[in-house]
Parts: sequence; C-alpha cells; structure tokens
Amino acid sequence: MKARVIVSFKDEVLDPQGLTIKNALHSLGYKFIKDVRQGKVFDIEIDGISVEDARKYLQEIADKVLANPVIEKFHWEIIEK
Amino acid sequence: MKARVIVSFKDEVLDPQGLTIKNALHSLGYKFIKDVRQGKVFDIEIDGISVEDARKYLQEIADKVLANPVIEKFHWEIIEK
Repeated sequence: MKARVIVSFKDEVLDPQGLTIKNALHSLGYKFIKDVRQGKVFDIEIDGISVEDARKYLQEIADKVLANPVIEKFHWEIIEK
Repeated sequence: MKARVIVSFKDEVLDPQGLTIKNALHSLGYKFIKDVRQGKVFDIEIDGISVEDARKYLQEIADKVLANPVIEKFHWEIIEK
C-alpha cells in the first residue's frame, strides 16, 4: 500500500523559503507567480496491515512524527491500495 | 489559479532523510512502514495568464528552478483554475 503525507506551514506562518523562490521567479521574469509556499511530502510504503488500520496509523504518524502541529498542517491520502 | 509541484529524489538516489524517518518510525513500533521517501512540495498561486500558458510555464519552472533534474524528478498539476 502506498500513502502520501503532505506537510506545510499553517497559512499564518511565514515561509522564507517560499518567499525566496517567489522572488527568484520574479527576477527570472515569471511575474505572474503571486505566491509560493514550500512544504514537505512523504511517500510511504506500508505492508501487512488493513487499509482501515493504515488510515488510523497514518493520521497518528502525520500528527506525532511528520508534522509539528504548532506551526504545520498536514494532509494524507492512500494513493495505492 | 493554484498549482502544486512535487519534487522528489529519483528512485535510484539515496534518501537519508527518508531513511532516518523510517528508522524512527520502526523504533516507535510502526514496523509495517516499509519505506519512506521525503520530497518537497511547492504550492504556487498564479494570476493573469491562461491555463495553457500556465501549463507551459509550470513545466519550465519545475524543470529549471524547482528541481535538479540530475538527481530529482518532478510532477506538477493545476489544482484550482
């Protein structure tokens, strides 16, 4: 089974990396780029448990290990059963 | 318009961050995690150009600015028109 977890800064948190990339793109002429936010993606391979259990554990893993809930939000999905 | 670009290491490239996370998850008891690969996600807001142009520029930006094609692969999609 394959899952993907996306972790990104909460909207109210400044993202200096994203800002740097936006500025770089502007200086390269891509003026139509209004905002860039950079986050992390985790592609996870899971084996030996049910989809139901995977859903439960993914929520737990994302919340406790992959993201810092103080400043980050996360979203996960199972992309291949 | 909103787009998302996902950049990750090519399959043949070692991913020490992903490996560290996998090992941490194992030591926490999540033994069913077989692999973790970490990548980057860029959420981009675009304004003032057509969807067709956006597709062209996104391919260009991902290839030339966001990813290092020597060791990374990328995938982009327009998630909101």
